[in-house]
Amino acid sequence: MTNIPGISDIREAAARIAPLAHRTPVLTSLAINEICGMQLFFKCENLQKVGAFKFRGACNAVMSLGEAEAAAGVATHSSGNHAQALALAARMRGIPAHIVMPETSPKIKQKAVAGYGGRITLCKPTLQAREETLEQVVAETGATFIHPFNNDRIIAGQGTAALELLEEITDLDAIIAPVGGGGLMSGTAIAAKALAPDISVWGAEPAGADDAIRSLAAGRIIPSQNPRTIADGLLTSLADKTFAIISRHVERIYPASDEAIVRAMRLIWERMKIIVEPSGAVPLAALLEKGPGGKAQKVGIIISGGNLDLDRLPWQESQ
Amino acid sequence: MTNIPGISDIREAAARIAPLAHRTPVLTSLAINEICGMQLFFKCENLQKVGAFKFRGACNAVMSLGEAEAAAGVATHSSGNHAQALALAARMRGIPAHIVMPETSPKIKQKAVAGYGGRITLCKPTLQAREETLEQVVAETGATFIHPFNNDRIIAGQGTAALELLEEITDLDAIIAPVGGGGLMSGTAIAAKALAPDISVWGAEPAGADDAIRSLAAGRIIPSQNPRTIADGLLTSLADKTFAIISRHVERIYPASDEAIVRAMRLIWERMKIIVEPSGAVPLAALLEKGPGGKAQKVGIIISGGNLDLDRLPWQESQ
Repeated sequence: MTNIPGISDIREAAARIAPLAHRTPVLTSLAINEICGMQLFFKCENLQKVGAFKFRGACNAVMSLGEAEAAAGVATHSSGNHAQALALAARMRGIPAHIVMPETSPKIKQKAVAGYGGRITLCKPTLQAREETLEQVVAETGATFIHPFNNDRIIAGQGTAALELLEEITDLDAIIAPVGGGGLMSGTAIAAKALAPDISVWGAEPAGADDAIRSLAAGRIIPSQNPRTIADGLLTSLADKTFAIISRHVERIYPASDEAIVRAMRLIWERMKIIVEPSGAVPLAALLEKGPGGKAQKVGIIISGGNLDLDRLPWQESQ
Repeated sequence: MTNIPGISDIREAAARIAPLAHRTPVLTSLAINEICGMQLFFKCENLQKVGAFKFRGACNAVMSLGEAEAAAGVATHSSGNHAQALALAARMRGIPAHIVMPETSPKIKQKAVAGYGGRITLCKPTLQAREETLEQVVAETGATFIHPFNNDRIIAGQGTAALELLEEITDLDAIIAPVGGGGLMSGTAIAAKALAPDISVWGAEPAGADDAIRSLAAGRIIPSQNPRTIADGLLTSLADKTFAIISRHVERIYPASDEAIVRAMRLIWERMKIIVEPSGAVPLAALLEKGPGGKAQKVGIIISGGNLDLDRLPWQESQ
């Protein structure tokens, strides 16, 4: 079995990132509780630096490097929140971050990465081009590759969000997180099972990118083929580390339709007055579709991020 | 001189509303600090119940009533956040809230008030009709009139936001709040001057509804004539209590153009991932126009609310 991080790694990560990351608030909404028939506690990682939980893992990975290793910088391939998070963490340490992005990635995302000081290398939009370009960058610079999720320090860093939530709300019956590559879900599960062994650990996945649901059912990794969902942060499939952790600790992963995702997103905007991206609304969407869980049930929800184009909102697409 | 509430009234209000209101988070943004050249601490009343600080005052006023008085309910005229706040506070106490609204007020606002159980009486959209209708409702029901801002318990309740902020960030150099009728500004000023006598207390007002700036300059209340601004929560003019408090405690009120208000609003949405209405962005807008205040300056900002139509955002109006 793959060696996986434990609660001590998450606690060490928490101490390491404490001076640099936000301790995000836990918010509640009576209106949303009534709609869901549960008592929900939202851990707001959309209010984290760079607007996503990804900063926790990236910061832990960058700050864990030895001096000599760090001096050569870090590198990754990502067109999403991990790229921004790694660039900011590297800037905080004063080292270079090399980011490989497909040439088709939106200018707004390239600009955000550059804004945090990331050094961008564009590549053709294929998996092969991405991996080859990254290998080349690493060979030329000596930078340390920080995988977006299949990395122990990334997973331990992401687990600090659940650690904070469970320290603050000590009697949760369940905790639910979105599943893409599985880094956040893995860290959440490790933290939850260590702090509250009886807690139910759930995942939530877009129905149009349900590789984790199918992988758990099959007992082996079944990558998504052409995933289609509005939740563009959750297109990635599980890898060996995250599959191993999720198989062991996650009770069930619930699917969410795109319709429910947009509804949940709007509900969070309107009732909680916070900006959540489609991927971040997936757990609430899954609970809305799953149906009420009983008034007494106290459920923690990790809201993963809030990065989206404010000029094009999902409920305006058809206008 | 008008008798005005003191810090002990604010502390009593804080104890009274603590079980019912959210203790809202204080958020920070390095990106916005860099733009402003100040260290800003945002007290997020947009994340308060009903999406605005107004719940603090309304809750304090409703919960302060004696049993007999309370039984007959409360009444007010408002088409804004105070109406929703009073309706919710009354529902929590199990008493009726009679809300007089102009028949021209948007259906979405009427629906929101009704959603909190408010009993709506529509009137013609004139000041005279509003006051007459309210008098009639009070005469018929025996309800207690709760003025939206020119009321000691409302002012004391609004002051609890600054009290929490100053308890959390103990070394602020200045604090700034938006000014409409002046209830929030008054409560903020009383709390700030009591807890931190050397603090600078600033207000911020839309340039298109700058009655408070003109009133302070003239030394008497000069109501706005046909105010025009995107910040539709700040159209109201000062009244005797709020004018007296603001004259005594507020060092200066800064104007903000509508252009700066929209820019500040978008900055808060993009960088802090929270939803703020135009009125709530006015203090940041005023600081943006005022210019940098020196790196070391620590400024607390009260973000007043987050209620607006998500289908029509200011930066999309021209599309």
